[in-house]
Amino acid sequence: MKQLYFITSNKGKALEAKKKFSKIGLEIIQKNLGYPEIQANTLEEVADFGAQYVESKINEPFFLEDAGLFIDALKGFPGVYSAYVFHTIGCKGILKLMKDIENRKATFRSIIAYKELNKDLKIIKGECQGYISKEEIGNNGFGYDPIFIPKGEKKTFAEMKTDEKNQFSHRGKSLDKLLDIF
Amino acid sequence: MKQLYFITSNKGKALEAKKKFSKIGLEIIQKNLGYPEIQANTLEEVADFGAQYVESKINEPFFLEDAGLFIDALKGFPGVYSAYVFHTIGCKGILKLMKDIENRKATFRSIIAYKELNKDLKIIKGECQGYISKEEIGNNGFGYDPIFIPKGEKKTFAEMKTDEKNQFSHRGKSLDKLLDIF
Repeated sequence: MKQLYFITSNKGKALEAKKKFSKIGLEIIQKNLGYPEIQANTLEEVADFGAQYVESKINEPFFLEDAGLFIDALKGFPGVYSAYVFHTIGCKGILKLMKDIENRKATFRSIIAYKELNKDLKIIKGECQGYISKEEIGNNGFGYDPIFIPKGEKKTFAEMKTDEKNQFSHRGKSLDKLLDIF
Repeated sequence: MKQLYFITSNKGKALEAKKKFSKIGLEIIQKNLGYPEIQANTLEEVADFGAQYVESKINEPFFLEDAGLFIDALKGFPGVYSAYVFHTIGCKGILKLMKDIENRKATFRSIIAYKELNKDLKIIKGECQGYISKEEIGNNGFGYDPIFIPKGEKKTFAEMKTDEKNQFSHRGKSLDKLLDIF
């Protein structure tokens, strides 16, 4: 295999994958196919449903990725709906919900659904444990990066440079596992 | 037509529809088919996608319904994801997010997707404008009823008896419009 489709509308994600896979000479082709994301309790279900749709549309090896922030004290909220929640109540809303809550544990999760021709779908997981900060700090990254501090660290993702963040990042880990397959 | 399928897992919704339609001698049959609900910005998109799935599974006239609470000051949150948000941060989370916010305007929306055999899908809307209360009041109803006061009223939905609530309710209105078709 020399080419692998990455089904995503997110250029940043595509770039991160291109960088990693170029090391082994595999070309990542970004394809913005717009698959349906279902309402579900787990990222696995969302990725699985999306991959089945994509499979019916293209006849090439591909993968897609879905990610979310799961906050323990909020029963996993915003979880599967992290993107929607970010675009409505945002980091400020999360901090307001977390006001006066001591347990600030949270996990960033990334799920990749990878489909090789004539093989079963593979589900690959990556996660990064950490904490919700007390305020928004840092200007790098995107989404919830300004309020997420990885376990054992003192800086938020938004205070880190891309390479430093990618060491810990949930997506970095799931992409590395996908890379291991090749 | 003597029978109409209502695709829902919610017995309360089914009962409400049965009551209304019995008046015109039409039997509502509840069918828990478990159609996929997509992540989307509007209830219309969710209902439309779900109805297309159901259409591929049964060859009978049917309708399905989706509802949500849209809060102005929170850019429409929890909106399409009202059920998930209720089961994670709940009414308490919404009140925390609304703390110190003056604009408490909110709208309950209900969308019905109705499919008659060999006809195009019909999308029917019902809505109820109102306000988010400052605290949870009342024990009737379910979901966000204890924090929603309909416009012009002083009680929350949870303080009203079923018949009183149904006068204002978004679902009552969309069901009435569906009834008008028959």
